[in-house]
Amino acid sequence: MRAIQPIDWTPQGVRMLDQRRLPGEVVYNVYADYAAVAAAIRDMVIRGAPAIGVAAAMGVALGVERSAAKSLDDLRKEFPIICGTLAKTRPTAVDLFWAIERMKKSFAAAASAPGASLDSIRAAIVAEAKLLHLEKRAIDEAIGRFGAALMPQEGRVMTQCNAGALATAGIGTALGVIRVAVEQGRKLTVLVPETRPYLQGARLTAWELQQDGIPLTLITDNMVGHILKTQQVGAIVVGADRIAANGDAANKIGTYQIAVLAREHNVPFYVAAPISTLDLSIPSGEHIPIEERSPDEVTHLRGVRIAPDVAVANPAFDVTPARLIAAIITERGVARAPYTDSLRALANAKTPAD
Amino acid sequence: MRAIQPIDWTPQGVRMLDQRRLPGEVVYNVYADYAAVAAAIRDMVIRGAPAIGVAAAMGVALGVERSAAKSLDDLRKEFPIICGTLAKTRPTAVDLFWAIERMKKSFAAAASAPGASLDSIRAAIVAEAKLLHLEKRAIDEAIGRFGAALMPQEGRVMTQCNAGALATAGIGTALGVIRVAVEQGRKLTVLVPETRPYLQGARLTAWELQQDGIPLTLITDNMVGHILKTQQVGAIVVGADRIAANGDAANKIGTYQIAVLAREHNVPFYVAAPISTLDLSIPSGEHIPIEERSPDEVTHLRGVRIAPDVAVANPAFDVTPARLIAAIITERGVARAPYTDSLRALANAKTPAD
Repeated sequence: MRAIQPIDWTPQGVRMLDQRRLPGEVVYNVYADYAAVAAAIRDMVIRGAPAIGVAAAMGVALGVERSAAKSLDDLRKEFPIICGTLAKTRPTAVDLFWAIERMKKSFAAAASAPGASLDSIRAAIVAEAKLLHLEKRAIDEAIGRFGAALMPQEGRVMTQCNAGALATAGIGTALGVIRVAVEQGRKLTVLVPETRPYLQGARLTAWELQQDGIPLTLITDNMVGHILKTQQVGAIVVGADRIAANGDAANKIGTYQIAVLAREHNVPFYVAAPISTLDLSIPSGEHIPIEERSPDEVTHLRGVRIAPDVAVANPAFDVTPARLIAAIITERGVARAPYTDSLRALANAKTPAD
Repeated sequence: MRAIQPIDWTPQGVRMLDQRRLPGEVVYNVYADYAAVAAAIRDMVIRGAPAIGVAAAMGVALGVERSAAKSLDDLRKEFPIICGTLAKTRPTAVDLFWAIERMKKSFAAAASAPGASLDSIRAAIVAEAKLLHLEKRAIDEAIGRFGAALMPQEGRVMTQCNAGALATAGIGTALGVIRVAVEQGRKLTVLVPETRPYLQGARLTAWELQQDGIPLTLITDNMVGHILKTQQVGAIVVGADRIAANGDAANKIGTYQIAVLAREHNVPFYVAAPISTLDLSIPSGEHIPIEERSPDEVTHLRGVRIAPDVAVANPAFDVTPARLIAAIITERGVARAPYTDSLRALANAKTPAD
């Protein structure tokens, strides 16, 4: 299935589509060292939990591949610095930590293998990052197939933010569900809230759907209630940045109120996210830290001041309680309430994708 | 009570603060003929139902004062054209039609008075527009006093859009309530949703509160649910553009979903609006026409494209059903459910302000 590729491993370094400049400009940047990759993640050149995971893995791989270390011992000392730099970029995305942990395991295995050398470790760690990327793509396709069955045969569906190819480096989670449904012949029109302050809906989701020829209607975030009240909407499907053991889901700011409005209007509200987004170590959403971002994102737009110099709140995420979620769609199947049981079962299941 | 004056009658014509350029620039334009006043209303130099009413009345007065008519008959023929031009500017604001009707009555009385002349009619109609403006100010003060009693002694309150001095040409309706409450010594901080697409919250309400030294926190429209869930908010007070006989209230897009979220979090949701906003001729909100505005307001901000060229919905208003409204605050008192009875009683009451 065709979808834009926001990140790739190239001989020159990690190549990323600069999502900050969409939709006006389509610009690819190449990052030649791990600190630059970390800065790109922090500065939101790339965003979306799964894509951040891929970027972090590639960042670790790049750090190892291009390390100036002359001995295995030197590389062993540098490796935690590389991982630490990448871990410090975005506090909410559990995929980031998951990807770094996986790279640590790969490093440990390669470094302790019989006959391990700097070259063999470098080759192993680069291969691991590439494999992780391929697996992400397969995961999106599986989420898309499970989720498509929950979409209406025709009519309007709604999403939020960008849980698309730009966010996952595959076909997307929420948008993957919509892509597969459309490919199956369902006649869907996607309602796209612009998703202030960063406008991921307007800039990214609208652009991505337009590239694929999927019909959409762009709205502002305060139109959601009015649209659900006055128009028939068949389903809402969003991504997630982190899901607690009880099914509470952290996602882009605004997701929570869309879920409340969905219930008010009897529209099923679905979360589509990979198993790696599950954080069973936290019992509920109250334990998910919420990133507070710069006031400038609210008071300025593309460098233009749109508000006076006043106090601003800018939480980047919110938590949707499990009771508002009709189902959580993963690459291993669809979880329904009670989520504490269904999510644990999916987390423990073994699938060929593992 | 101090508050910015967005519109004034001057010897040069109708002077308006150009609200489109706030908060970056504070610019006053003078409009020397009625067609220019109509264009200013349509182009949102001035906005907010009561202020639009004042502007329409001044527009009618300006048309009569500066008419080239040489006879009473000529002026009688021109007058409906003047009124028609001003009536065609904004379809949702009932204050606009109310103000024009009042000017028509004033014109008819002046024109049929014994010894009526072009000069006497001109003087009468200009005086009527000025009186209407003074009455609007008195109305806001009365709304403010009734509403202030419903505000908490301290803590957070929330509003939406701009129902302030900039919207009413007085101290504001919703912001008038907050102003009087603060003047009474209540320690309030105002949560201000930015109110996309036109950003009346960010550009106007934030600026107006800042001018008065009232503490505020600016948020994006999709943070409302998260804020209500994670912080204590004592009350929400908004304006209205038109209120049906059953209490359903049309107001700026986004108001409806704030009301749903208020109920979800047990926060009282108040509408503050003058009696002139009541339209008892329509039984419920379903009969209120909703203005659909240009897609450019969503896809562009200050001339900068922020979304690709895609389909857009841009309803300027929505309707909040009466069941979500804790009380409707008017200059004649506070109406509570059942609104069909309480609003009719207030509409029929005679007060000194009449």
